[in-house]
This record gives sequence, C-alpha cells and structure tokens, in this order.
Amino acid sequence: MTRSASSPVTDTARRAKAAAAVLAPQPRTVRDGALLAIADSLEARSGEIVAANADDIAKARAAGTSEAITDRLTLTPERIAAIAADVRHVVGLPDPVGEVVRGSTLPNGLELRQVRVPLGVVGIIYEARPNVTVDAAALCLKSGNAVLLRGSSSAYASNSALVAVLRDAVESAGLPADVVQLVPGESRESVRELMRARGLVDVLIPRGGASLIRTVVEESTVPVIETGTGNCHVYVDEHADIEMAVKILVNSKASRPSVCNAAETVLVHAGIADAFLPRALAALCEAGVTVHGDDAWQRAGKDAGTHVIAATEEDWAAEYLSYDIAAAVVPGLEAAVEHIRRWSSGHTEAIVTRDQGAARRFVALVDSTAVMVNASTRFTDGGQFGFGAEIGISTQKLHARGPMGLPELTSTKYVVTGEGHIR
Amino acid sequence: MTRSASSPVTDTARRAKAAAAVLAPQPRTVRDGALLAIADSLEARSGEIVAANADDIAKARAAGTSEAITDRLTLTPERIAAIAADVRHVVGLPDPVGEVVRGSTLPNGLELRQVRVPLGVVGIIYEARPNVTVDAAALCLKSGNAVLLRGSSSAYASNSALVAVLRDAVESAGLPADVVQLVPGESRESVRELMRARGLVDVLIPRGGASLIRTVVEESTVPVIETGTGNCHVYVDEHADIEMAVKILVNSKASRPSVCNAAETVLVHAGIADAFLPRALAALCEAGVTVHGDDAWQRAGKDAGTHVIAATEEDWAAEYLSYDIAAAVVPGLEAAVEHIRRWSSGHTEAIVTRDQGAARRFVALVDSTAVMVNASTRFTDGGQFGFGAEIGISTQKLHARGPMGLPELTSTKYVVTGEGHIR
Repeated sequence: MTRSASSPVTDTARRAKAAAAVLAPQPRTVRDGALLAIADSLEARSGEIVAANADDIAKARAAGTSEAITDRLTLTPERIAAIAADVRHVVGLPDPVGEVVRGSTLPNGLELRQVRVPLGVVGIIYEARPNVTVDAAALCLKSGNAVLLRGSSSAYASNSALVAVLRDAVESAGLPADVVQLVPGESRESVRELMRARGLVDVLIPRGGASLIRTVVEESTVPVIETGTGNCHVYVDEHADIEMAVKILVNSKASRPSVCNAAETVLVHAGIADAFLPRALAALCEAGVTVHGDDAWQRAGKDAGTHVIAATEEDWAAEYLSYDIAAAVVPGLEAAVEHIRRWSSGHTEAIVTRDQGAARRFVALVDSTAVMVNASTRFTDGGQFGFGAEIGISTQKLHARGPMGLPELTSTKYVVTGEGHIR
Repeated sequence: MTRSASSPVTDTARRAKAAAAVLAPQPRTVRDGALLAIADSLEARSGEIVAANADDIAKARAAGTSEAITDRLTLTPERIAAIAADVRHVVGLPDPVGEVVRGSTLPNGLELRQVRVPLGVVGIIYEARPNVTVDAAALCLKSGNAVLLRGSSSAYASNSALVAVLRDAVESAGLPADVVQLVPGESRESVRELMRARGLVDVLIPRGGASLIRTVVEESTVPVIETGTGNCHVYVDEHADIEMAVKILVNSKASRPSVCNAAETVLVHAGIADAFLPRALAALCEAGVTVHGDDAWQRAGKDAGTHVIAATEEDWAAEYLSYDIAAAVVPGLEAAVEHIRRWSSGHTEAIVTRDQGAARRFVALVDSTAVMVNASTRFTDGGQFGFGAEIGISTQKLHARGPMGLPELTSTKYVVTGEGHIR
C-alpha cells in the first residue's frame, strides 16, 4: 500500500479510489442510467461547452497552431451531438462486469468461478481531441471504473466544461461525481504525480504520440498499458496475386495515413519484384505516396520515371504517419520476417500470398499484435473487429494486446463457494 | 525498441530473445520432448547436482544460516527425483499455445481469430529454494517462453549445476540451449540490469519476500507481475455456523502459517462475538496460535484465562507468516469490508455465513484476488484450483490475478484472414 503525500493530484486520485469502491458493485442499470444522463446533458448543455471550446480555439489561433490541429480541437453542436450518440451506443454494448470467464466444480465440491470485475481507477493521458474526454469516460463508466482524465493543456477549457457536465450527469444518476475527474494542473508535474500514484490508480493508458508514451512507460510506477505506435509492414510474397497486392498496399498506406494501423513499409519477395514494382509504383504515385526505396526500388523508379528517394536505416524505423512509405526487396519470406522483427513496432503486419504454407509460416513467425493474411493493415481496429468500442490499441504483450474493448478494462476475481471446506 | 548497452546481463537477455524467436513457433511435441529430456537428465545427473548443492550447504552452514532455511536449500537424489516427476507432470498439461481465445467471421467475411502465443522472454527473480529453478523453467518451456533465472546467491552453485543440466537437455531435444539461462553475477547490480532490459525481456516475475517484490515493482522498466504477499482475512458473520467458522479459522491460520494464503486477521461480527470468541480462543490456543486482539478479544481472553496481546495498527498490517493472528470485533459486514479495504494486501478473504445475502454482499464489496464463502483461505492455490501447475499467485489486477497457470504465461495475437479485403 502506497501512502503518497498529499497534493492536488493525489487527493484527486484518492477521491477516485473511494468513488470507484462505490461504483464497482453497481448493477448495469445504474451505470447505463449514468451514461444516458451524460448523453442527454451533453446535448442540453452544448452551448456552454462550445463557449469554453472557443477559448481553447482562440488560444490555439493566437499560438499559431495549424488549421488541422485547430480543427481537431473544435467542438460544434453537431460534433457534440455525435459524441452523445457514441455514448448512447456504449449503453447498448454487452456488460463486461460479472461475466464468468471460467468456472468449475472442484473434485472436493468447491465451486470455483473466475468473474470479471472493474479494474478500479483508470487514468487516461491523451492529447488534443476533446472528444476523447467523453469517449474514455463512457467506456470506463460502462466497465465500472472511475476515470482520471489528463488531456492536453491546449484543450483545458473544453475538457473542464465537458467534465463538469459529466460529473453533474453521473451525480443525477445516483453515482458519486468523483467517478469522473479531470486531473488538476496543466503542467508536466501533474502527469508525473499521476504516474507515481501507485496504490491509488490501477492503470494508466497513454494515448498520443510516441514520446508521450515512452515517457509514461519509463517513468510510471503505476502499471501502464502501452498503446498505438504503428510501424506496420505489408509483405508481398512470391506467390501473391499482384492486383490484390497492389490494392492492399495502397489501401494500407493511403486510405488514412495519419493513423497507427497505416502501413509504413512494403517488403517484396525478389521472385515477384520485376512484375510487382512497376505496378506498385504507378498505384502509389497515383495515390500521392512518396516511396523511400532500396536499390531495387530506386532502379524500378528510374525505369518508370518515378522519383524514388534512397532509403536509409531511419526509413525502416520511421512511423511516417504521412504519404510516405519505405520499400525494400527481400530474398524471401524469412528475410521479410527478419526485417519485421528488427524494425516493427509490433502493431500489424500483412502478407499477400496465394500460398497457404507461406501464410502459415508468416503467421507463426511474426510476433505482432495482429497479422493480416490477404487483408489491409487498416483492419486492426476495435470497431472493425466488432468490439463496438475501443479505448486504444495495445502494442504490449501483458494484459491486453491489440484493440482494447470493454473486457480489456476489467480484471477478474475468483469466487470460491464451499460448505465448510478446509485443507 | 530499447537498445541497452552491452553487459553480461543484457547479452544474456539478447541471447534469450533470439532463442525465444526459435522456440515460439515450435509445436508441442518439440517442447514436450525437451521437458522429458530434462526430467531424464536430472535423474541421470543427480550426482553432480548434489555435489554442487553441497557447496551451497557448506557456505550456508558457515554463515550460520538457520536449519529451516538450510533444509529448504538442500537437494538429495530423492528430492531431485521428485522435481523430475513434477517436470513429467507438466508434460501432460494442456498446451496453452495456439489456443483460440475468441474467433468470429466479421460481416465483411474477414475471419478473425485471437490466438494464444508465448510471451517471449520471462525473467524469474526468486529466493532460496533451488527446485524453483527447474519448476519455473519447465512451465516457461511448456508455454513456449525462453526463461532467465535469477535465483538467490546462496543457491548459486546448485542453480548453476541445475541450469547446466537443463541446457544440455533442451539442446539434445533440438532447441537452442539459450532458452534456459541463469542470469550471470551474484550481485544486486545484475538484478538491476535485468529490470532495465526493456525490449529484451517481456515480463519479470519476482517470487519471494515483500521487500524483493517492492523493489522490482518500483524500479523495473520491464513489465512486472507482482506475486504473493498475503495479508488474508477471515470474517465471521453474524449468521455463521460457529463450529464451521472455528474449523475454517483454524485451518486458514494454522494448517501452514508460512504461506501467502494463510489467514493473518480474523474479524468477527459483534452479534456473534459472545458465542464465537471463547470457542475460537480455545481452538486457536490448542493449535498454538497467539492472538493479537482488540479490546473485545482481550476481554474474552481474560474471561477464558488465555493471554491475548493488545493489537496495534501494525498488527492489522502484518503478514506474520507465523503462529500469530490479529483479531477484532466489528459492528457489521460493511465495517469488516472497510477494514479489509484498508489493510488487506488483496490476496484472499473469507466469509463464514449461512446468510446468502451477506455472502453476496461480501463477494461484491471485497476487492481481492479471491473471495472464499464458507471455505478456508488456504484454497487459493493453482494446484487446488485444478490448474495443474502454478508459477506464482498474482496480487495485481493487470494481465493475471490469482494463481497463475500456463495460460497466464502467454499473450495473444490476432490473426485475420481475407481474400483481398480493404477498407
């Protein structure tokens, strides 16, 4: 048991822990009622949310923030209605709490059940988008957890207004307001205190850029679930259907380059390179993608009259999140796997092949969160996987790996029932 | 990706990572073959193991180590045969690797499977008993993981001899010897390096005293699974069967006081105290247990002519691991839960009651790894739960909670199969 010194952050965490103890045993109807109250309140009070958001926007403009980021920060009554609709969608999802994960009657007659229970207090550290504030709070409430929200300081006014609405709503539904709290303070120090609140906070989930995630992973004594950096690969096997491979490559790279499941490197079997490279270059070029290629790709570019930038080691490591892709020709499947083992962030890798043996080998040898066979890397997503919601995509191996839905926001406990059993 | 500087420990971890990549895709027959070779070799080479063990024993004696600890350190041909038998038992357990945890066909026809895979490299930090060396290695191999073993320096000669036998055996079975390695060095510094080998080691499991576990939890950047400190409680409800409650209390406390699932505190509902305390005191006294009680227990002790030590806050926090128990009378179930929330280590708590509503309330409100209804706390154990093996008892909420068997030594990956699917 950690007894942290008192500070605004640890006091907040302490209140969250007390509120979590009240929330955890509540039946689904109470939690769902709170979510419906949140959705209604967001719409009813969208005026004050938009007003607070205007302050953040004005500050962002004054600071010369890019239009793209300012747009991500912007809340309108329509966007708030969409956020409320997402909350109502969460109400309809199956309740993870109380699910019996396994159960049996032991030889001595003891009844053993492993039951899903809330984690307790979940801390979310995230950047820019204020919709995450509501989204994360809704998923935590649905799964019976109290939530500590630490958003970007650039969205502080918006997040404060949103959390005020959330707290009033959960209170009106009979739950302690402290099940939803904003971490006080806009400084780095408040994040640091949150990372040290072991014993008060059960898990931290950082959502954002690679440097934020690295800091949290390295400095936190609270357990962390690492999310979302994606250096994803598409491997085009010798026995690929070329047309399929081109479609999957372009979709993986260019359908939405800013997200973590976008491809960042394409590896091509030498046996199919002559046929594939010209087709791929033409399609990538048409999609507006710049290729950073090895010698073979550079030669193919020269032949096709397409400029291919010479790739360096930095390209193999890069998570571009832009219309760029690293490209290499490899002598075979094992070399592709070697490259992936060395450079991948372990998010998603795809193989395109008609060869069942190659597909099996690739799946067995690649150690990543998701392996796609003849499908785009873009499918690694809680919504696409049918989870109904996603709190992030874990790229670590403990607790949760891949898209995290509601069950990943729970722990379990064993309930053992006897009639005077002793050992 | 962490690029740790080279050192004997990080070099060992790097070799483990390479060996883990070879081990992970091996079918069950190969892993089971290695385990059978280990069992045979341990028996065949028990002479050299006992000789190495004699060095550790001699050192322990010279250092004035207690007889109990020296006995735990001792290996004989009979004990080695028992260890080999345990390894053969592991061979027969179900293979966790490759198990499909969930699967579905998505609306667009993509086939989604979540499949169990090895974690990769597992580090075990443990104390005294050299049997843990073989036990941990066997469970890691069975679940497809490479293992880094960091035992107590007092067992260094024994562990070195055991690991030499294990490495030869796995190599004879066609696996890289480096799937089993002893962490070099006997100093604290080697533990520290292991804790910093993020990116090379996938998880650390400390098994031992509370201070070892605390150090690892606080200093490790490698993910940790916290095990085994147990401040367990027995709550005797107003509507308990008194005879059953006495039996469960004595069994929970005194059947094996040195283990983590032994009870350390008994809480008694005020409404049953007059009837229960004298019976409990007599039974505890007969079992050789010293009671550290509150005022009510002290008064009952006076009436019964049994000495009850006055309990302080330290007693509520204590994990005695001895024939001592803290004891209090509480006004009701909620007060018992409050006490448990405040002082428990979250391992195991038991309620004794005939009242179904009280049992339900206790189960819902207590946030511990295991909750026993009318059963001894001593049942929280992988063997008792029917898991066939146990690598430790997790008292944390992430990844694994409670006794950890083979599935808890795995992660999962998603395998998604399509026929040219794009988004």
